Amino acid sequence: MTAPRYDVLAIGNAIVDVIADADDAFLSAEGLVKGSMRLIDEAESTRLYGRMKAGREISGGSAGNTAAGLAALGLKVAYAGQVADDQLGAIYAHDIKAQGIDFIVAPRGGIGATATSLILVTPDAQRTMNTFLGATQRLELGHFDPSVAADASILYLEGYLWDPELPRAAMVEAMAAARSAGRKVALTLSDTFVVDRHGDDFRRLLDEGRLDILFGNEAELIAMTGASTFDAAVEALAPKVPLLVATHGDQGAVAVRGTERARVAAEPIADLVDTTGAGDLFAAGFLAGEVRGLGLEASLRLGAIAAAEVIQHYGARPEQDLKALASDLL
Amino acid sequence: MTAPRYDVLAIGNAIVDVIADADDAFLSAEGLVKGSMRLIDEAESTRLYGRMKAGREISGGSAGNTAAGLAALGLKVAYAGQVADDQLGAIYAHDIKAQGIDFIVAPRGGIGATATSLILVTPDAQRTMNTFLGATQRLELGHFDPSVAADASILYLEGYLWDPELPRAAMVEAMAAARSAGRKVALTLSDTFVVDRHGDDFRRLLDEGRLDILFGNEAELIAMTGASTFDAAVEALAPKVPLLVATHGDQGAVAVRGTERARVAAEPIADLVDTTGAGDLFAAGFLAGEVRGLGLEASLRLGAIAAAEVIQHYGARPEQDLKALASDLL
Repeated sequence: MTAPRYDVLAIGNAIVDVIADADDAFLSAEGLVKGSMRLIDEAESTRLYGRMKAGREISGGSAGNTAAGLAALGLKVAYAGQVADDQLGAIYAHDIKAQGIDFIVAPRGGIGATATSLILVTPDAQRTMNTFLGATQRLELGHFDPSVAADASILYLEGYLWDPELPRAAMVEAMAAARSAGRKVALTLSDTFVVDRHGDDFRRLLDEGRLDILFGNEAELIAMTGASTFDAAVEALAPKVPLLVATHGDQGAVAVRGTERARVAAEPIADLVDTTGAGDLFAAGFLAGEVRGLGLEASLRLGAIAAAEVIQHYGARPEQDLKALASDLL
Repeated sequence: MTAPRYDVLAIGNAIVDVIADADDAFLSAEGLVKGSMRLIDEAESTRLYGRMKAGREISGGSAGNTAAGLAALGLKVAYAGQVADDQLGAIYAHDIKAQGIDFIVAPRGGIGATATSLILVTPDAQRTMNTFLGATQRLELGHFDPSVAADASILYLEGYLWDPELPRAAMVEAMAAARSAGRKVALTLSDTFVVDRHGDDFRRLLDEGRLDILFGNEAELIAMTGASTFDAAVEALAPKVPLLVATHGDQGAVAVRGTERARVAAEPIADLVDTTGAGDLFAAGFLAGEVRGLGLEASLRLGAIAAAEVIQHYGARPEQDLKALASDLL
């Protein structure tokens, strides 16, 4: 078997983040659940945007953020996500390519506008996301070649993308291509509401042995298992997947591979600004360690370092040199 | 005379900044003059963007930044700048309105894309700007009502906008409307290259008594006067304008009104990140003090506080609460 062209193929919603400060009263008035992601239509996006403060537009999307982190850590990365042929789509494509990532889905017209997520950052640095999917729901076979998954050591799937039907079908094909080629398949659960909507699907994928690596945070793992604590959820899920990576906010993270397990504390940070992308960059750091065979503990530490960088500034893509920050591990 | 509706009407290039980190070697390879602004066409903008790192898109434009600072300091502000009816134009309009500013020029189609400035921020926090004017060159009479200037205590003009012909004609009409109504007219010189191109015009405006307030930094004032030092340039220009406000980088700033003069040091800062907008926000702070009758020294201090805030983060619009930062003055 020849070495695959890519270390990771990441598939996700291609979204430009619109990031603005907001206070708790604004969230209350809008009836928003702090820390969650909700899908909204274009009319609601326009209405809410009209009430938001001035914003910063920064490329985002969960798997896109992870891809950016992986590339910043020196991995060979391909990314699949659908943008429109509009200005925000051009910005998104630029930002992916500027990271040295192969963007394997061409921008297209006639499928609505490029996705945006209106992200409200409260003074406690929590983010509340309001996502208009637009064009990114149209990632579909015919415009995306799932066989690329056969040419990547790891296929990384974003749980959020399980919502829209066409991308879900495309991801299922990519999983099959990866499996046929003997590659690994990773999934991140993304959000408790995603687990509420698609937990049955995800549990079936686990039961059928179609997932090699599962990423989730405390709330997502509890939603998946019905367990009442982080530790209980980890114990319940670990036997169902070859490698479980469970993040626990400022309490750190745990990884379990069979009888092997490791735990790290969160990295200390100077200035918590915006938690958007914390999980995405944790996944990037962990996978970078996994691809390099660093072992569970070092991979978790790499995840914690990448997550710590991204929560100290607005936006969910790394700004500092991650390789330099993690130089003792790489 | 009834009180005017606005404290300030600001007119300038309506530009979305595309902000990316770059090193000195990149500037050299591209033949760029650090710290300057150059005008580029759409082809060059596309070419350079393709070579830049991943960016952050944040509304900018010199007078737009000043307007944002004025509004953040509690003033009643109107802004005139032309955007296209595209996604970046909608973002620009949103960000102006979200500051509580009246945006008095409607987005339009058929005039090219909304202006963008590719801003390269080097590790020394200097910014080098590459601006594609696009739609903003089409700020013109018929789509902009210069008589609004009669309803603002101060008309604030951006020197950069003296480059394109139609906006220059619109600004001349606005100056006449302001003068007829007994309002004050302020001009910022914007850039040494602007002074190189239009110094004769600016000196004529001064000689004809059509400017009440002039803003410039060291290099611009030297370019205007041919003097060899900051102090000599201030002495040469001060007699030619009722109020001169001269900024001197990290050495502070000077204001001269007839025989009255004041000088302040720069505010101490913790973390210099991106100097884009320093002059724009200095002007905002100073004008806010001037409108409130605080006197030269307090107005300069307000300028220094606003400038210090904006250079400690990416983007040229204030992120912190300027009123709170300047609470001892307001």
